[in-house]
Amino acid sequence: MHGALQGVRVLDMTTMVSGPVATMILADQGADVIKVESPSGDLMRQYGSIVEGVSSSFLSCNRGKRGLCVDLKTPAGLEIIQRLAGKADVLVQNFRPGAMDRVGLGEQAIRKIRPDIIYVSISGVGETGPYSQQRIYDPIIQALSGLAELQADRESTGRPRMVRTIIPDKTTALTAAQAISAALFYRERSGEGQHIRIAMLDAMVAYLWPEAISSLSFVGRERDPASGQMGLDLVFDTRDGFITAGALSDQEWLGMCRALEREDLINDPRFITARSRIENGAARRQITSEALKQWCSADILERLHAHGVPCAPIVSRMELLDNDQVRENDLLHIFDDPHLGQVRQPRPAARFDKSPSSIRRLAPGLGGHNAEILEELGYSASLCEQLQKDGVLLTALRNQ
Amino acid sequence: MHGALQGVRVLDMTTMVSGPVATMILADQGADVIKVESPSGDLMRQYGSIVEGVSSSFLSCNRGKRGLCVDLKTPAGLEIIQRLAGKADVLVQNFRPGAMDRVGLGEQAIRKIRPDIIYVSISGVGETGPYSQQRIYDPIIQALSGLAELQADRESTGRPRMVRTIIPDKTTALTAAQAISAALFYRERSGEGQHIRIAMLDAMVAYLWPEAISSLSFVGRERDPASGQMGLDLVFDTRDGFITAGALSDQEWLGMCRALEREDLINDPRFITARSRIENGAARRQITSEALKQWCSADILERLHAHGVPCAPIVSRMELLDNDQVRENDLLHIFDDPHLGQVRQPRPAARFDKSPSSIRRLAPGLGGHNAEILEELGYSASLCEQLQKDGVLLTALRNQ
Repeated sequence: MHGALQGVRVLDMTTMVSGPVATMILADQGADVIKVESPSGDLMRQYGSIVEGVSSSFLSCNRGKRGLCVDLKTPAGLEIIQRLAGKADVLVQNFRPGAMDRVGLGEQAIRKIRPDIIYVSISGVGETGPYSQQRIYDPIIQALSGLAELQADRESTGRPRMVRTIIPDKTTALTAAQAISAALFYRERSGEGQHIRIAMLDAMVAYLWPEAISSLSFVGRERDPASGQMGLDLVFDTRDGFITAGALSDQEWLGMCRALEREDLINDPRFITARSRIENGAARRQITSEALKQWCSADILERLHAHGVPCAPIVSRMELLDNDQVRENDLLHIFDDPHLGQVRQPRPAARFDKSPSSIRRLAPGLGGHNAEILEELGYSASLCEQLQKDGVLLTALRNQ
Repeated sequence: MHGALQGVRVLDMTTMVSGPVATMILADQGADVIKVESPSGDLMRQYGSIVEGVSSSFLSCNRGKRGLCVDLKTPAGLEIIQRLAGKADVLVQNFRPGAMDRVGLGEQAIRKIRPDIIYVSISGVGETGPYSQQRIYDPIIQALSGLAELQADRESTGRPRMVRTIIPDKTTALTAAQAISAALFYRERSGEGQHIRIAMLDAMVAYLWPEAISSLSFVGRERDPASGQMGLDLVFDTRDGFITAGALSDQEWLGMCRALEREDLINDPRFITARSRIENGAARRQITSEALKQWCSADILERLHAHGVPCAPIVSRMELLDNDQVRENDLLHIFDDPHLGQVRQPRPAARFDKSPSSIRRLAPGLGGHNAEILEELGYSASLCEQLQKDGVLLTALRNQ
């Protein structure tokens, strides 16, 4: 048994997160992904926790890929990429708009070499418009997409706030991986490749919309999404910590009243239907908060659970390592690396029973597969060595 | 030209967000998605902004689908689903583990009718383990996955905080849509369907990991991800509001110093390399914050922009409606609905140049396509009417 995308070859000319995580998802599903880096290496190699010169973040955005490090500013380097493109099903790039064209690797040039390629361009905000030529980092898209406003401190200062994980980058990665997979399906049926363009800003607006922006759906009857949104901060104080709990259905609300020994609320007209509970959300929130404060976390979680009310402790990321449900799901896998020792990575989330995903290798060192990849292209060992001497190819001495 | 998934039939037996948004993405790309609802309707019809009895959230999680409302507890209702499954390429369900088996629509039963179906089960935390039988809402996964801890108030109270948009639901939707697309590709090549299982918890851990949990990658050398994470809160005060700005590369840092008229920082040894700027992040942050406070937003944004420093205003969701870049990207489309008037939806993010996505219809009313769907299955008009009278089928009087 092999991955769903076995046999698909991906030329990955992306850096940082949005592109690399997209192609990593494809690699987990069996695609042969060649990550191309310039001699200075993906900037991501500098971020995160660094052990033995290897970045945990780079490692976690590039597993399963092979690494090629080549100087695109040399004709010989460019030729290597062109020859790789000739054998690729997918090329993904997230340079600034126009940059690939300038080095001679734009869609038109590549399509001459490989007519049915799926050419994917990931940008920050699109290829035109006021922000299109500036470099885009994740917080820029959090600011432009409404995410920073959504997360603003509503209790006191009104100050906008970022989400402390790079939602736009990673959402764009998933959006791109999905689009590429759909385009592979389409090419299988039609024989046709195409150009897919994805802007992080577009991916974020589409992602936020379903509940967080949807109140702008009715033209002329827009309601400010900030005025009453779902996904409120359902963190409750208990006597000894914090928990989350929530009751949406009638049955769950009944369970909540009973778990809290507040049967008096069951027939309270403000809370008798799902709709009335939404309308009187503030009052319900206050009453629930006060009641939960009377209990210790473990006790009330047990009671809520017994009464069929969705609830959970607040788990820290460190605690994930020992969490029952994480263990039950076999979620964290460990790999042996001769250089790094044992390395932990999360199992790909989707479990395919006939074409299982797998993590076949850890992230490549800079130029870690130069020789192997060039050999597959038909370069001789001596030519490969010469290119290395000429600075066209670079292989870092160690796995970094 | 038609969408990448044209010709794919999806039987959508999901409610709320994780499943519905997954199948909506497939519908945007051309799949024929039939949304099946029980007579009580998807609970999502109760949430969000309600206009003319229609929920903006339901509308924004179910566009492009046809609607069937059927009572699964009746033999005739069950038969309708079985006959639809016989013609479906994909069945997606997000009932609690075991529920589909109990009503006779589990994988084994469906595979007898349609041997090569792609059967997709979305769960909250998986099919076994301590939390598997409770109903899972989004905040539960925010709590269990480490997201609520990640977003904790580190400046003062240490209190965990939710992200105010349902990240786990929507990330699971993208994860599922990608997996389904990869499985469609695989089936095209192998002829084989399969069962894909996706837990929201797994999707979130995989999604958070690349930078937000990756410091747990090195076994025995784990570092608490809370101790120094990327994606800090890059919101800066100006004299008249808030902006975001950030300088990662040497060039950008140089630009930042110049834009702020702080050339004295250019040769400061604490900030001279990317790595040293990370190591001295706190100091850099403080100096930058103080300097930015001296400027008005519009002025400093213009200066930062001119000096090649990534920056942006904080845009509210209301402001998206008039934003230059949103307009440039043709991001918000408007549809005419006889009942609702004009309705706004975001364009699907990925732009395919050969198989363009499109929003072919708005979300269905409850049972809005009962007659059409049954007719396609070969039911006569009179039988259809009888099923309606018997309460097997239900069609809401209006578009809600």
